[in-house]
Amino acid sequence: MKALVNLQVIPIGTGVSVSAYIAACGAILEEAGLETELHANGTNIEGEWDRVFEAIKRCHERVHEMGAPRIQTLVSVGTRTDKEQSLKDKVESVRRRTRE
Amino acid sequence: MKALVNLQVIPIGTGVSVSAYIAACGAILEEAGLETELHANGTNIEGEWDRVFEAIKRCHERVHEMGAPRIQTLVSVGTRTDKEQSLKDKVESVRRRTRE
Amino acid sequence: MKALVNLQVIPIGTGVSVSAYIAACGAILEEAGLETELHANGTNIEGEWDRVFEAIKRCHERVHEMGAPRIQTLVSVGTRTDKEQSLKDKVESVRRRTRE
Amino acid sequence: MKALVNLQVIPIGTGVSVSAYIAACGAILEEAGLETELHANGTNIEGEWDRVFEAIKRCHERVHEMGAPRIQTLVSVGTRTDKEQSLKDKVESVRRRTRE
Repeated sequence: MKALVNLQVIPIGTGVSVSAYIAACGAILEEAGLETELHANGTNIEGEWDRVFEAIKRCHERVHEMGAPRIQTLVSVGTRTDKEQSLKDKVESVRRRTRE
Repeated sequence: MKALVNLQVIPIGTGVSVSAYIAACGAILEEAGLETELHANGTNIEGEWDRVFEAIKRCHERVHEMGAPRIQTLVSVGTRTDKEQSLKDKVESVRRRTRE
Repeated sequence: MKALVNLQVIPIGTGVSVSAYIAACGAILEEAGLETELHANGTNIEGEWDRVFEAIKRCHERVHEMGAPRIQTLVSVGTRTDKEQSLKDKVESVRRRTRE
Repeated sequence: MKALVNLQVIPIGTGVSVSAYIAACGAILEEAGLETELHANGTNIEGEWDRVFEAIKRCHERVHEMGAPRIQTLVSVGTRTDKEQSLKDKVESVRRRTRE
């Protein structure tokens, strides 16, 4: 089952800057061979469900190792059975409508 | 790693009522031996990370089998290393502050 | 337009305990005359759209005043035109299916 | 108070394709003079709190007018008092860490 995900990791009980943690998660997602797109409120991920959620778990473990005592993460995950769809397809589908 | 989760499953491309799908997911979470609390905007879940996310995956599979061609699910997941905390502890912690 | 909301406020750059901030937001929601239900991963809110979002804004302002330099808040908001539905109705609708 | 938002609008009780609704919301955000960035799991928005949430309300009203009887929307909103930050700043801040 393919999953399209937006991942927003929020470390709590650390400093006000969280970019180092986000960058570390980005590296883990890359190592997992997942397609990713960083944006201003998270990272979009495309991949098989198990591989995606295994990487998200490793991200939590890594952010704790880096010193964050608490993490709240928002995952928005979409699956569909009617057709194959990629991250790029989703954006293009809205752009096409916008041009109409 | 223990996870405290809010799960909100949103079937797309079906009828306006989604309660049958939510009830089916509830049954899957129960079978998995997870502690759950149904509320008006989702289901709170307490359990080991792997067991929780395996159950969420089965929930997606089941909702597709029931006929929903597309699902968008919102997962808010918290982990912490500073102390053990249950779903009940989180609510009680706020209630204590409210009474102060 | 009536809105049913789950509100999860996450202060960043403060200590690991966030319950004092959540309690302060709870007081603001009460003062606004909104129906609320605290749960382990947020607060469910029922009310008119404008009143709900005005209260959420005041909550952000208050949490900043209390010393949090940064806040990330998750709002899941539902509206519908096919029927009136309360927070209680949503839970009861799933419970009914579960008993079937 | 400036807000950086990710908006994910999910129409329920309609067809499996939701791109027409997302495009309509995009037009409303543009008309409101807000800076936006469409991505695969939502639209990032930068602007004054009141203007952003007024536009999100109009988006719900418009999607109902287009025929969706039910909408569930996910809003992730960030505010901060320690410094001014734009959507572009947030991405650049993580990219800088990634290059280190």
